[in-house]
Amino acid sequence: MNTFGRNLRLTTFGESHGPAVGGVLDGFPAGIKIDFDLILREMEARRPGGKGVSTRQEPDMPEFLSGISTDGYSLGTPIGFIIKNKDTRSNDYNLLENAYRPNHADYTYMRRYGIRDHRGGGRASARETACRVVGGALALHILTNHDIRVRAFLTGVGKVGEENLLESLSLNPELASGYEPSEELKVHIMVEVEKARMEKDSIGGTVSCMILNMPPGIGNPIYDKLSARLAEAMMGINAAKGFEIGYGTASAGRKGSEVLDRFEETLTGQLYTRTNYSGGLQGGISNGMPIFFNVSFKPTPTIGRPIPIMTDDGKEEIVTIPGRHDPCVAVRAVSVVKAMAALTVADLLLTPKLETHFKR
Amino acid sequence: MNTFGRNLRLTTFGESHGPAVGGVLDGFPAGIKIDFDLILREMEARRPGGKGVSTRQEPDMPEFLSGISTDGYSLGTPIGFIIKNKDTRSNDYNLLENAYRPNHADYTYMRRYGIRDHRGGGRASARETACRVVGGALALHILTNHDIRVRAFLTGVGKVGEENLLESLSLNPELASGYEPSEELKVHIMVEVEKARMEKDSIGGTVSCMILNMPPGIGNPIYDKLSARLAEAMMGINAAKGFEIGYGTASAGRKGSEVLDRFEETLTGQLYTRTNYSGGLQGGISNGMPIFFNVSFKPTPTIGRPIPIMTDDGKEEIVTIPGRHDPCVAVRAVSVVKAMAALTVADLLLTPKLETHFKR
Amino acid sequence: MNTFGRNLRLTTFGESHGPAVGGVLDGFPAGIKIDFDLILREMEARRPGGKGVSTRQEPDMPEFLSGISTDGYSLGTPIGFIIKNKDTRSNDYNLLENAYRPNHADYTYMRRYGIRDHRGGGRASARETACRVVGGALALHILTNHDIRVRAFLTGVGKVGEENLLESLSLNPELASGYEPSEELKVHIMVEVEKARMEKDSIGGTVSCMILNMPPGIGNPIYDKLSARLAEAMMGINAAKGFEIGYGTASAGRKGSEVLDRFEETLTGQLYTRTNYSGGLQGGISNGMPIFFNVSFKPTPTIGRPIPIMTDDGKEEIVTIPGRHDPCVAVRAVSVVKAMAALTVADLLLTPKLETHFKR
Amino acid sequence: MNTFGRNLRLTTFGESHGPAVGGVLDGFPAGIKIDFDLILREMEARRPGGKGVSTRQEPDMPEFLSGISTDGYSLGTPIGFIIKNKDTRSNDYNLLENAYRPNHADYTYMRRYGIRDHRGGGRASARETACRVVGGALALHILTNHDIRVRAFLTGVGKVGEENLLESLSLNPELASGYEPSEELKVHIMVEVEKARMEKDSIGGTVSCMILNMPPGIGNPIYDKLSARLAEAMMGINAAKGFEIGYGTASAGRKGSEVLDRFEETLTGQLYTRTNYSGGLQGGISNGMPIFFNVSFKPTPTIGRPIPIMTDDGKEEIVTIPGRHDPCVAVRAVSVVKAMAALTVADLLLTPKLETHFKR
Repeated sequence: MNTFGRNLRLTTFGESHGPAVGGVLDGFPAGIKIDFDLILREMEARRPGGKGVSTRQEPDMPEFLSGISTDGYSLGTPIGFIIKNKDTRSNDYNLLENAYRPNHADYTYMRRYGIRDHRGGGRASARETACRVVGGALALHILTNHDIRVRAFLTGVGKVGEENLLESLSLNPELASGYEPSEELKVHIMVEVEKARMEKDSIGGTVSCMILNMPPGIGNPIYDKLSARLAEAMMGINAAKGFEIGYGTASAGRKGSEVLDRFEETLTGQLYTRTNYSGGLQGGISNGMPIFFNVSFKPTPTIGRPIPIMTDDGKEEIVTIPGRHDPCVAVRAVSVVKAMAALTVADLLLTPKLETHFKR
Repeated sequence: MNTFGRNLRLTTFGESHGPAVGGVLDGFPAGIKIDFDLILREMEARRPGGKGVSTRQEPDMPEFLSGISTDGYSLGTPIGFIIKNKDTRSNDYNLLENAYRPNHADYTYMRRYGIRDHRGGGRASARETACRVVGGALALHILTNHDIRVRAFLTGVGKVGEENLLESLSLNPELASGYEPSEELKVHIMVEVEKARMEKDSIGGTVSCMILNMPPGIGNPIYDKLSARLAEAMMGINAAKGFEIGYGTASAGRKGSEVLDRFEETLTGQLYTRTNYSGGLQGGISNGMPIFFNVSFKPTPTIGRPIPIMTDDGKEEIVTIPGRHDPCVAVRAVSVVKAMAALTVADLLLTPKLETHFKR
Repeated sequence: MNTFGRNLRLTTFGESHGPAVGGVLDGFPAGIKIDFDLILREMEARRPGGKGVSTRQEPDMPEFLSGISTDGYSLGTPIGFIIKNKDTRSNDYNLLENAYRPNHADYTYMRRYGIRDHRGGGRASARETACRVVGGALALHILTNHDIRVRAFLTGVGKVGEENLLESLSLNPELASGYEPSEELKVHIMVEVEKARMEKDSIGGTVSCMILNMPPGIGNPIYDKLSARLAEAMMGINAAKGFEIGYGTASAGRKGSEVLDRFEETLTGQLYTRTNYSGGLQGGISNGMPIFFNVSFKPTPTIGRPIPIMTDDGKEEIVTIPGRHDPCVAVRAVSVVKAMAALTVADLLLTPKLETHFKR
Repeated sequence: MNTFGRNLRLTTFGESHGPAVGGVLDGFPAGIKIDFDLILREMEARRPGGKGVSTRQEPDMPEFLSGISTDGYSLGTPIGFIIKNKDTRSNDYNLLENAYRPNHADYTYMRRYGIRDHRGGGRASARETACRVVGGALALHILTNHDIRVRAFLTGVGKVGEENLLESLSLNPELASGYEPSEELKVHIMVEVEKARMEKDSIGGTVSCMILNMPPGIGNPIYDKLSARLAEAMMGINAAKGFEIGYGTASAGRKGSEVLDRFEETLTGQLYTRTNYSGGLQGGISNGMPIFFNVSFKPTPTIGRPIPIMTDDGKEEIVTIPGRHDPCVAVRAVSVVKAMAALTVADLLLTPKLETHFKR
């Protein structure tokens, strides 16, 4: 349950205020030169302490304990790593020892386990996602070997954002260089996030992700569709409330004749489609077009102003939770969406190709 | 890959125009009296031949081959069943032997496997979902033992439907009797579907599902959240393009202070929340409130009017596909959504309760 | 739990006296021409009604329901099949409805499930192994594509047999043509089995299996060793009580200097070992030498003479169980050992090769 | 592949001479008071540096990083731990950088991965089993909650030992206090091991294990038998070459009438059997009698005297491998057998009880 993936498996552990969080990535192919700079860049993107995120300062340097040769190549054996928890202020959380915050996992963990680590959200803290980013950065090495690229952006917060992003991507399926929100929109978004912080409130947001240069024939039919796997991966991220792929929820509002992705043939005989309402896959299997999807995140439930918490003996109290909280969880989620997409696609690339070697 | 679930596992097989489709449900508890009428009612709801669906007539009676005692109790051993394919008109599909329909899985199966059964969509046909409904109907027996109910409805097609359904459910969390669209809306929806059929077109739709009387503490954290499991289950249904839970994608547009689910205590000491923006779970674990979610379906890609298909040697042809096609795949998807929800929840109910027997 | 394998997964169902037994083989590669004669030959080898086995007569022809094209090629989709149960004499088993036979699974199924199908042993009957043989015969197609051969023989029953079989194989590692017991031994063995039948008794036996032309580098380290996988596969066969690989249990009696498999290089630069005490693998991974192992089977617990059974209200009764029973379960187990070996190796061949494409 | 178990999952990582080995135990129930002394006692039993084992000195104290509350109770979240590698003399292994030792995994890892960590055997080193012992010690907490005890002993090395151990256990099924080799035999065994060390040789051995007070109805039928799970667990231990349960390989030499375990009823109405040739299970499911089995270990392949190694360019060299090697790997394997047995049984105890709550 704390493992993601079938062929490339990331198992993580760790509470927010315990000695460390960490993980094991098993099934990673042998002989790949590890790009530690890439890993640190991905970690940096997720790191708290930046703009729009919690002010908790953590160097977040993973220590790799196994699976990598002394000269930096993967051994094919499991890659174990830990990230020590250093800047924890557990006392901030004392008042939660016997109380539940609204919209947090405090109460549900208690119902699930009968015990919980209340400090910093324990296992339910977004701190765990640091391990996903390490795993995702390693998975990116596999994608790079197949020339596949993953791009993720914050494309909306609150009322600000690109309403018709999926539509515009549907109509421009090639997107060789990848989509990127305008600089203007980026600024507008960060202003909106800072506004929420200053109001001691929080704000929801939407992360959009594209997988470019995806070869056709990747993914499985029926229960294990590429779309189902991506949905599972994304909805497993803290605070995710919605997932849509291709033309997404807007598909429900259209006629079949309006959203038909007409095939065309390239000069090299490869098929592609003129539009991409499908979002790069049919029947759960990639068709060679870019894959794109949106993930919706709710606002961070803990905010700077007084909120009503419920004690475990049934008394409501209005308190201000100290701690340091992201005003917009979607800001940091961008790197987590990218990491989970990379892990999902790498896992499928490592799935046995059923048609290899066997020809009629 | 053709197996759904971890503790309660449904494995299905079968092509649309082969001798039969079928499945094996493994992990089903022993000693449950099987309600065959319930199974047939669920099958009936999915059956083609009704209003708004394909005119293919199939009795769709599953033959149970194992796992049930002669007096109708489950044995704890795998329940095998088959559903014979009777009313197949394979010749309708001759022109697809070497051509790919747009937005269908024809091309992607070919890229995945290098071979495919082109008759009736082969394995990618919605025919497979008959097996899901059998599995789901069996799973409902387990839910009934826990007094859990699942309700699913078509709540929108094309431009017709309940735009703010998730909002209204968020604000009325108790819903003891369950949500049901008004009779007026139901009629309006079916009119819209028939209109699409008469225009030889198809139309998208939205299915809304509620899980009522869900006990708290069900589901797992991190990668295996109840929300992630439901998303995977739903996005694995043919033609699904979007999934949202609780206040869903609208969460991204809100401030934290606006969507706070305040706790309250019942007279019996059970906690509940006054609103239910969370949709019945936090951190991936149920909180005892109703769970609700929407699934968006694209319009059926094959329509009655001429469409451009692509031959495998790169020529586009404009043809009218004979066959019998649902004008709105979402109509039949209602029972499949219900089935997949039942399978998902039953699977989690069978997960080892980690806190049982052990007390501080 | 009724599924075997990770990449190539056989799921079976069916009680001995229900309408049918059957299975689903998922993960089978696409585009393989199915050799139905091979399947029937393997079924024939397992079939009751032959010498040394139960006199139950069953045609045992699997009906394939899916996963195979009309011209006989695999589609990459799950291969579903059923084998109807025809020659059942359920009344033979009436006296077992409320009683447990010694050394049978009657009592343990009752403790596990609280209910059981007592007719013909229900799910615990060796009837289920017919499905394993179908799956194994399909798996052999994959092995044949890699030029791997599996050979299995009955090499001992009771006091008759080759005591030092593993030793002789260890010393002759190449065995290009494969080991085969002498005609004399085969006759001696069948005489011994018939003797047991005439005495209305049963007898234990040993099945020896060789996997020839196994490429090096197949299998996984640590918990998922090729030896562990074979052991699991073999000990999952009805009546199996022991498994040993390479020099087996005799290894425990030797010094390290005595069982050292010295490397040698072929003219083509391929390494091999002069002896093969290791049985073709080290650290759980194949080394390119033949793999060989023994499986020990207990005598069939149900015999023709009166035996003490225990009623579920605690009374012992001495009865003669009617039914038709193999005097030596190991006779039929030969084809099941072969099938399970083929399934195990095929599964590992389909495991993602971690070192592919990536070079230092 | 580096994960053991389905419900209680131990994932390990680490090379012998890397910074650390470690693991993650997921699925461990919440609210159990962790007995750290027990863990250290189990670690102590496995530790090198004792009699009959390698002279490598390692404190082997696991550092727990997660999953345990500050007051020592399990949280239900994954328990992460590391064991630092301190006393490594990597230079001892320089001559193996480009050469393969006989009967070691050097060559097979190279064929599997195309790269390996040659220092101290890398991932294939018995060092990894330290993590199994940590996991096993935690699993023992679950067994203790069910009053189940596991006992394991070295019962034979080379020609010294109890030839008829399984027979004697079969005839004395109750063994309330558990089997233990005589003090005399223990001394005799250790003398034999020391003799091998002094001869700069190594010696094989047999570990016998008993699981006492096992409740009936635990385990699964068909492919997932308790016997199959134990066999897989045991054959996954380094150097294991054979596994036998109950009367084991000797069963093959007997008549059915000779090994019949006659039922008897206790005063409390519980069934038991007068003998226990079955070794505590039928059809893969426990019957309430003690479970016992033997595991055979080959002699440590690396010995103190000169041995022929093969360079990767095909030259044989006769060298003395420095390093520190156990003369008898079976000595340390005792605690590993116990750990793997505990993990296997705990995993099955956590399997959903299919008959719970449902009654006819």
